[in-house]
Amino acid sequence: MSYAGQLLDTYPRDFNVDAGMLTTTIDALIECAQACTADADDDLSERNVGELVKCIRLCLDCADVCDATVRVISRQTEYDANITRPLLEACAATCKGCGDECERHAQMHAHCRVCAEACRRCEQACRDLLAAMS
Amino acid sequence: MSYAGQLLDTYPRDFNVDAGMLTTTIDALIECAQACTADADDDLSERNVGELVKCIRLCLDCADVCDATVRVISRQTEYDANITRPLLEACAATCKGCGDECERHAQMHAHCRVCAEACRRCEQACRDLLAAMS
Amino acid sequence: MSYAGQLLDTYPRDFNVDAGMLTTTIDALIECAQACTADADDDLSERNVGELVKCIRLCLDCADVCDATVRVISRQTEYDANITRPLLEACAATCKGCGDECERHAQMHAHCRVCAEACRRCEQACRDLLAAMS
Amino acid sequence: MSYAGQLLDTYPRDFNVDAGMLTTTIDALIECAQACTADADDDLSERNVGELVKCIRLCLDCADVCDATVRVISRQTEYDANITRPLLEACAATCKGCGDECERHAQMHAHCRVCAEACRRCEQACRDLLAAMS
Repeated sequence: MSYAGQLLDTYPRDFNVDAGMLTTTIDALIECAQACTADADDDLSERNVGELVKCIRLCLDCADVCDATVRVISRQTEYDANITRPLLEACAATCKGCGDECERHAQMHAHCRVCAEACRRCEQACRDLLAAMS
Repeated sequence: MSYAGQLLDTYPRDFNVDAGMLTTTIDALIECAQACTADADDDLSERNVGELVKCIRLCLDCADVCDATVRVISRQTEYDANITRPLLEACAATCKGCGDECERHAQMHAHCRVCAEACRRCEQACRDLLAAMS
Repeated sequence: MSYAGQLLDTYPRDFNVDAGMLTTTIDALIECAQACTADADDDLSERNVGELVKCIRLCLDCADVCDATVRVISRQTEYDANITRPLLEACAATCKGCGDECERHAQMHAHCRVCAEACRRCEQACRDLLAAMS
Repeated sequence: MSYAGQLLDTYPRDFNVDAGMLTTTIDALIECAQACTADADDDLSERNVGELVKCIRLCLDCADVCDATVRVISRQTEYDANITRPLLEACAATCKGCGDECERHAQMHAHCRVCAEACRRCEQACRDLLAAMS
């Protein structure tokens, strides 16, 4: 079991969201953040970097938003839906925008295909968690 | 002039939002993020730390969300309102929640009073920028 | 294979460090950062939070340093050992400090035991990567 | 007075480093982090983006390392020099590398000149704080 799952197992209080779903979302977020950081860097190594500027920019945004989101949802103490919900929505929107852009370059650049996949999985995980929270 | 303002002045393209308003928001976000990090730490030094758990948690969230938001709005290249808008909304909600909680401790702890002020100013700056974007 | 590994596989240039070792370090860092964020939060939920202040503080530090380190080592383009080496050293030192403190609470709190393990693994991965770089 | 200064003034315990010097370092770090984020983005908008790849990469690193460093030094509770010192050294090295690279583009791009200045100021502040700590 991942550390994320083990830490939810050993959390000293009860929490409302399903632990398995929360673990899935946490893992999707930390992997997506890293994939976006790496893909932005891969783009910088391509000869046609000038055509990848939008992809780089959205990958940087997506890494930042995923990193903030995984920190907030990793905190269960004094949970506040008024903070978590809009952030998960912002994160899903960012993953959507970044995933769409990466997909446009997926045939030419394999790293963009991998990153698009990480973004899609993360967007879905955020939306599933939002649905489970309501 | 702050570096944020100088960098907007030297940006190589045009951008739509008013540069002065953007500078104000950037400065409010970086100061709020740092204030929240410091206030969470100040709370940890208080004897009644057990009563400040909610304040610590919200300060940690607020620092993370402000840090992500300032990075995203500092990027003007290939600007995408579908990403910026929900993030600014999430950030304003987080500053509101954190500011409210800090204010509850403001009379007992001067550091919470300072942090509440930073959160209020940041929330307002995010809302002003959102209004200017529409 | 993790996204980190896939993205190293699809990187458009050569790179010097062994890809398997780099993937291991990246995975250890992102898991340690999340574990530290979660453990700090778990500590805040404990009745004896006043005795866990040092643990919380070091977990917050460790999450921040691991997050910065994983971003820097995920970037292969224009790699600069003068930046990567001291950061990996700082990260190993932080994981050491945090792991030591978490271990002191491991018998009383299972979440501290899990976090200590994540810190130990991450410290070792940073040191292995440093050794491989020289 | 900045919020950083006010929060040091209202810190509930004593601390060893000079508060004025600490405030200066905190302010230099948060401004440098933002300047580097903005400069990387400015570079992405330039026609000769292909020649600015190293500058972009180092600016991204510098923003990440400065953000982690300002969080760690903003925490006074249970201060641990074994963590703070190597991180400040890594941060000074990163600011040096980034400042050097930005300076190479300062005559052609005003935003790189501004960013170089922010990096120089931040590097010096980190070194001054390190000297004061010993």
